[in-house]
Amino acid sequence: MTTPDLSRRGAVFSLAAALAAPIGSARGATPPPTQHGKSEPDTSHPEPADRPGASTKPAPKTAADDLYRPWLHFTPATGFMNDPNGMVFDGTHYHLYYQFDPFAPYAGRVHWGHAISTDMLHWQDQPIAIPQTPAGEAFSGSAVIDAKNTCGLFTTPLTPAPQTPPSQTPPAQPQAAPIPTPGANLVAIYTRASARNQSQYLAWSTDNGRTFTEYHTPVLDIGSNSFRDPKVFFHTPTGRWIMVLAKSREHKVGIYGSIDLIHWMMLSDFGPTGLLGVDYECPNLIEVPFDEGGTRWVMFVSVNPGAPQGGSITQYFVGDFNGTEFIAHETTIGLTDFAKDNYALQCFDNMPNDEAVGIAWLSNWQYCEELPNKAWRGVMTLPRTLSLTRDHGGWIRLVQMPRGIETLRDRQIAKPLTHLDAGTSQQTPLPAGVPVELNLHITMDERPQGLEPGDKGRAGRFIIVFANENGETLSIGFDAFSSQIWLDRSDLHGFTQPFFTGQFSTALQPDKRDVTFRLVLDACTLELFVDGGTSVGTALVFPSAPLTELRLEASGAGATIHGLEVHTLKKAMDRPGIPA
Amino acid sequence: MTTPDLSRRGAVFSLAAALAAPIGSARGATPPPTQHGKSEPDTSHPEPADRPGASTKPAPKTAADDLYRPWLHFTPATGFMNDPNGMVFDGTHYHLYYQFDPFAPYAGRVHWGHAISTDMLHWQDQPIAIPQTPAGEAFSGSAVIDAKNTCGLFTTPLTPAPQTPPSQTPPAQPQAAPIPTPGANLVAIYTRASARNQSQYLAWSTDNGRTFTEYHTPVLDIGSNSFRDPKVFFHTPTGRWIMVLAKSREHKVGIYGSIDLIHWMMLSDFGPTGLLGVDYECPNLIEVPFDEGGTRWVMFVSVNPGAPQGGSITQYFVGDFNGTEFIAHETTIGLTDFAKDNYALQCFDNMPNDEAVGIAWLSNWQYCEELPNKAWRGVMTLPRTLSLTRDHGGWIRLVQMPRGIETLRDRQIAKPLTHLDAGTSQQTPLPAGVPVELNLHITMDERPQGLEPGDKGRAGRFIIVFANENGETLSIGFDAFSSQIWLDRSDLHGFTQPFFTGQFSTALQPDKRDVTFRLVLDACTLELFVDGGTSVGTALVFPSAPLTELRLEASGAGATIHGLEVHTLKKAMDRPGIPA
Repeated sequence: MTTPDLSRRGAVFSLAAALAAPIGSARGATPPPTQHGKSEPDTSHPEPADRPGASTKPAPKTAADDLYRPWLHFTPATGFMNDPNGMVFDGTHYHLYYQFDPFAPYAGRVHWGHAISTDMLHWQDQPIAIPQTPAGEAFSGSAVIDAKNTCGLFTTPLTPAPQTPPSQTPPAQPQAAPIPTPGANLVAIYTRASARNQSQYLAWSTDNGRTFTEYHTPVLDIGSNSFRDPKVFFHTPTGRWIMVLAKSREHKVGIYGSIDLIHWMMLSDFGPTGLLGVDYECPNLIEVPFDEGGTRWVMFVSVNPGAPQGGSITQYFVGDFNGTEFIAHETTIGLTDFAKDNYALQCFDNMPNDEAVGIAWLSNWQYCEELPNKAWRGVMTLPRTLSLTRDHGGWIRLVQMPRGIETLRDRQIAKPLTHLDAGTSQQTPLPAGVPVELNLHITMDERPQGLEPGDKGRAGRFIIVFANENGETLSIGFDAFSSQIWLDRSDLHGFTQPFFTGQFSTALQPDKRDVTFRLVLDACTLELFVDGGTSVGTALVFPSAPLTELRLEASGAGATIHGLEVHTLKKAMDRPGIPA
Repeated sequence: MTTPDLSRRGAVFSLAAALAAPIGSARGATPPPTQHGKSEPDTSHPEPADRPGASTKPAPKTAADDLYRPWLHFTPATGFMNDPNGMVFDGTHYHLYYQFDPFAPYAGRVHWGHAISTDMLHWQDQPIAIPQTPAGEAFSGSAVIDAKNTCGLFTTPLTPAPQTPPSQTPPAQPQAAPIPTPGANLVAIYTRASARNQSQYLAWSTDNGRTFTEYHTPVLDIGSNSFRDPKVFFHTPTGRWIMVLAKSREHKVGIYGSIDLIHWMMLSDFGPTGLLGVDYECPNLIEVPFDEGGTRWVMFVSVNPGAPQGGSITQYFVGDFNGTEFIAHETTIGLTDFAKDNYALQCFDNMPNDEAVGIAWLSNWQYCEELPNKAWRGVMTLPRTLSLTRDHGGWIRLVQMPRGIETLRDRQIAKPLTHLDAGTSQQTPLPAGVPVELNLHITMDERPQGLEPGDKGRAGRFIIVFANENGETLSIGFDAFSSQIWLDRSDLHGFTQPFFTGQFSTALQPDKRDVTFRLVLDACTLELFVDGGTSVGTALVFPSAPLTELRLEASGAGATIHGLEVHTLKKAMDRPGIPA
């Protein structure tokens, strides 16, 4: 390894330069967007003049954009968002960067958007952090706090990064909130992607992640156009930085080491293993607490397309990391979700107490560019605390639970309920458009004697139904006598598309009749955590009107209700379409 | 190993004994069936008097039973059928045994049904071959031809097995077709299942598989209630019989060896690996031709419930078998299907030229007991020739193609078509209820310039639609610019159930715009073979009325039609509901 050449360390980004960058996407054949629709031009947002031929304003807002806008889940004010990036805690704020085009309703021209938060729920928008440049789009990557300045780039303070003139602020991007200075030594590592090459770049920030200066050359380039999404962390036992990234078409995760974040040495490959699909993307390697004590290393690998459920999926492997190699304990694989809108999971770096917390993109490449909302597209999952537990079969499995949403609870609206007889239901009205959290623990009664198995409605099922005035329903059900659950969004009529699968299901521990549900329903999102987060279903949902009734139904057998809470949740985000 | 005690070799089965056997199912908590419905008693079938308390006639036939009855696919005349069993070629006939209750519309009281064929398409029913006994139900297993009488059981001819009196013949089971004698030395190995134990039994047949004598004790019993579905074959290099069977809850495939089919020695375990679900079932280990030369061993493992698509699925691993251990080449896994109605694949033993041919159960445990047809339930896939090829990523993948259906072609009904412009379609009427085979090869035109990506109808899709007079559609589509295909049965309204997933999809080789489809639509079955059988979708389909129109549509871009053939297919099966 050699000392980095600090004489020509890099270029400070300006948004003007970003917006003047050449267009075109390496991720699929994305032609230049043109003007959308034929409605009146929206003149409320300034339109940079230096981006010839490209649309520089969001698609006109429609009713769908408001109807489907979550109140808690992070969404971009305008434009298209996909993978979470650069997730790091700087000592004061959590940073969420993300794949972003502020104008288009489609993927392409990828910049790094940016938001900060002190609780991972209330996010404050920041200016675009890393733009597309002539070297390529700014594809996914990660961020670390280089407290010891191992990269050497923080020793000679740069001239402060130029602030973006207001006239070139992307539309609906609020002014940045003040970030305390002096900043943590925040370093981003990400992929510059052109049609021919994907190489890893580094940029550092002296203002706590608000603006970045890019190192003048790639820090890792193997001449591949299928080599992306670096996730970096510091491995204390070996005293070096570790990068995992996808050799996408080879279905391998490359593992590299570095002492300075700039010079990287190949250590090993993980894979191919498990479900391959077409591309591996967005690997994450993280130490996750195990409820039997200690931790285990978990390798997350996103796959797209080609998931068994269709399109995009994230699989994981539990094992050990010795500083050089990741060794999976078994050749079994887990999936982070039994539905299909949970992709590109990334975990926060530099977390206090080594808490494992991740956020994923709540969508699927099969339909993310065709959703009914168009002025904004893309939503993140809630932050989720990750842990490990042993399942009924003895396998170590991922546990995911939403983090911190108790702080958003407003009114408890559930009616008392201790038992539902077979064939009965209980209705509770829901305030239109307001997010709700449901917590429920039930035990189905024993199977009635003399019933034949199987036929519809006689099988012993507990069903949670969200319904609206148009007769549409979203159902989550427990089939007690096969110990399976389902999530059925097929009776919502706000969006249909051949890849937008209606039904999902998974198997719980066999031969048990009790189950716990925790779910958050927030506009176009449903996050379902079953049996303490050991089974998770994450789904986009598009009712044609708000879901204003909660119905609990017992079918085929009765059910004892051990606990039932339904809370409305307060908004966490300020966004167009969310009441003030 | 010791010589078997031939002095008390076993008991010859009679159907009278079978029908008098205790009832109750070890596979799930299946209570005794009672009389179905309130319609007039059906007195057309004799009802054995010796089965107290149990329903001994099929459910009354309804219109659905006729509407959904396939003409080609094997179905039971009445009753409930699941896994294929005992598949073997005896030199003249192919034998298909199957998990069967001739009376109930639900699983339970499992016998081995039996049919024979000379082409795997035209099947002749045989009497029940192996009944439930006090030792347990007759769960899944396999059959081999013990030509050298390694078991020693064929040396002392038994008294001919008693013929079943006509009055005790199961309803609608035609008289057995004559089978040539002397018979091949056919041996069945299967699981006797009670609530507490699953052990492996052997039975031999001196009349070519028509009747069996059961060996007096289990041939393999480890005291487990989760140990089943033995598949046996002769391994020539080591000169011994090999049995693979499921240690279901341990997610292992046990591999055992024997020189006489009676005494078995544990050789190794395969697994746990891949997707675990709740139970492993129905393993199959077979040498499959590889199109680059030679063969590879493939281990098929069925999993239920807990498939990513929900419920039941079959995964496979490509590797080597050295006579003792199966070693997968990689830790990658494949799924036999991208839909979810393809379970418990079994391959024929003793095939000429070592052809690899399999048949699977065309259903899913999530809904097989709730389907709209009730007087008969359960359908097998068409026989499929299996081979291996390397996919675009270099991975060795299973190829499945239907076997021999060309012989059933009747009329070619496709209209000439060489190109479909974007936004246009071609309609062809289909004869109601008659099975059709479609063969199609297309190339989508290049993406039109200036189109934005993504939005519905602009993405470049070729769609095969089957429609009916009620406006229902079954669609199979190719999204050319993401190289994915879908199968969408959600617009058919003959059956809905929360686990009956509507949409399935998979990814083809990326960045190619041409695709081949071969499909057979036969009443409630759709079998789809894409790109030469490298991607296969198998789905139950329940339109409320026959699909009487074929529509080919090009959307977003035009398509060149290189080849289009649509044949009606002649019936292969005589069954209630199929015209004479």
